[in-house]
Amino acid sequence: MEFKNDLFLRAHKGEAIERYPVWLMRQAGRILPEYRAVRAKLSGFKELVETPEFASEVTIQPVDLLGVDAAIIFSDILVVPEAMGLPYEMLEQRGPWFENTIRSQEQLNLLDKNIDVEDRLSYVFEALKLTKKGLEGRVPLIGFAGAPWTIFCYMVEGKGSKTFSESRKLLYTNPVLAHELLSRITDVTIQYLKAQLTAGADALQLFDSWAGILGREQYAAFGLTYIAKIVDAIPNIPMTVFSKGAVASIPEISKLNCTTLGLDWNMSVAETRELVGETKTLQGNLDPCVLYGSESVIENETIKLLKSFKSQRHIVNLGHGVYPDIDPEKVKVFIKTVQNYEI
Amino acid sequence: MEFKNDLFLRAHKGEAIERYPVWLMRQAGRILPEYRAVRAKLSGFKELVETPEFASEVTIQPVDLLGVDAAIIFSDILVVPEAMGLPYEMLEQRGPWFENTIRSQEQLNLLDKNIDVEDRLSYVFEALKLTKKGLEGRVPLIGFAGAPWTIFCYMVEGKGSKTFSESRKLLYTNPVLAHELLSRITDVTIQYLKAQLTAGADALQLFDSWAGILGREQYAAFGLTYIAKIVDAIPNIPMTVFSKGAVASIPEISKLNCTTLGLDWNMSVAETRELVGETKTLQGNLDPCVLYGSESVIENETIKLLKSFKSQRHIVNLGHGVYPDIDPEKVKVFIKTVQNYEI
Repeated sequence: MEFKNDLFLRAHKGEAIERYPVWLMRQAGRILPEYRAVRAKLSGFKELVETPEFASEVTIQPVDLLGVDAAIIFSDILVVPEAMGLPYEMLEQRGPWFENTIRSQEQLNLLDKNIDVEDRLSYVFEALKLTKKGLEGRVPLIGFAGAPWTIFCYMVEGKGSKTFSESRKLLYTNPVLAHELLSRITDVTIQYLKAQLTAGADALQLFDSWAGILGREQYAAFGLTYIAKIVDAIPNIPMTVFSKGAVASIPEISKLNCTTLGLDWNMSVAETRELVGETKTLQGNLDPCVLYGSESVIENETIKLLKSFKSQRHIVNLGHGVYPDIDPEKVKVFIKTVQNYEI
Repeated sequence: MEFKNDLFLRAHKGEAIERYPVWLMRQAGRILPEYRAVRAKLSGFKELVETPEFASEVTIQPVDLLGVDAAIIFSDILVVPEAMGLPYEMLEQRGPWFENTIRSQEQLNLLDKNIDVEDRLSYVFEALKLTKKGLEGRVPLIGFAGAPWTIFCYMVEGKGSKTFSESRKLLYTNPVLAHELLSRITDVTIQYLKAQLTAGADALQLFDSWAGILGREQYAAFGLTYIAKIVDAIPNIPMTVFSKGAVASIPEISKLNCTTLGLDWNMSVAETRELVGETKTLQGNLDPCVLYGSESVIENETIKLLKSFKSQRHIVNLGHGVYPDIDPEKVKVFIKTVQNYEI
């Protein structure tokens, strides 16, 4: 397919680019009044995730309104555990909540086996198809999933947590069970991501939001092992692995067979570049709080980041999802600064 | 003063030791039924903090019951903002809460100036004196404070947070105000720590619980600058700086003029040792979740840590506070394993 703007895909592949592409994690979301207007018509967050027309509409909004160089499908990483037989609710102010959790073999046995991912997550694939049509080739479309460790965290803990100590506990009390659950999440995730590609996703991203709570050895064993399986099962696709907080594990992360590494604002662009050379694209990593600053603060901090790049293999983004109370006008300053910067 | 057991102090100073000393962050607390019995008699957490007899009683409990090699005064880092004129409440299940916050010069101006730290925090000094007496020289007594950045986080945010985005926002929107508040916290903290030494503390620890949410440059500017001021103002004292989560900043942290660095379970003992050589003691850093494991898991993981030490300059601890639902018998396995290990 021909894109009007394929900078994002070229940057993933390490091809020549005229300028750095830019998008924001959580760009389709609460920062936009137009998103909140759609959301207000619905019963809740899940209705938005599960209704392809609405999910597609809010996915395209930041392309129209902010001028980003890529769209990312509006969805949630927790659709995967739900497809596996562990439904969740999204509670206002409090975040995700699971009625059931997996902390024993008996509970693991209650999960559905050999699920039909195409069927169970059809609403995501439908949303991708609609979005692909709606985008009319303006920019590429990103599909995504949670990395197995992060999905495991929610399935064991049942809700968000500062420490995820129930999840980490299982690694010491029953590592065999932990590996079995991680393997099952991995299998479903591979099917899910492949089906997203079939439905129209042009690139993929794995979000490992809770990578940073594991020590380096444990992240290698319980985190990266499964990410590697996913990456290796879906080769030759622009794919970003974003292991938030795993500063100590950058050397191992650098060895994954993905095209692109996502960096949070604690990770060093220069040090990671030194490790990966020209073999990988780096995505990130402006501190999301910069967008609270004045226009000149945003311009200066963004240009400082851009000037630090020693390669064309960069996709500009924040180091985490954009905070919901950021003014969209400030987001535009960030985007314009990147798009006007001459490589 | 003569100690029956001064291993902890000798390890801080890099003197010869027969075995590694061991204690646990949050050892005086909810893990002990004896603590919960004291707590149940009182109106709340703050009454315990503010009543020297009770604070002293629970401080000594883990020395009697667990056999640790150091006591740490039972208190809270938030007594400092309260002494500065910003009172807090400790809400059940929800954590600390401040009615007022500091986000503008006007709000900063409302803080009390030239406070009499001796008077405002007299209950802490009284608790230290009582504890010192009660310990009868069995083990050294640790005093502590929050590092300025972490105290700043609570004073600006007004409560706990996953992102502390209000606090980080101020670094971009009003860095002058941020530095002024950090300076004032630093001045009070220096007075507070000196007075703790006068009241009987044998060693000090600075807790920078939210170090990890700042990027490396910002942590150097807004975090370590102020820690360095404190460390330099109180020389020749066994002092531990624990910058939780600041994995990327270990090179800068290593240059502080303190005797000891606290490491969380994400930080590498080997890499930090390489940076500091024999100039510093390292404290930590077993994953707190190990204590959920079986006795043999605890023994094996603890011995693995001990075997990794290439120096005598170590104080063994967890990489974070002990989780409140850990069985004290498991804590004893950890302590015994360290105390029976031959250097």
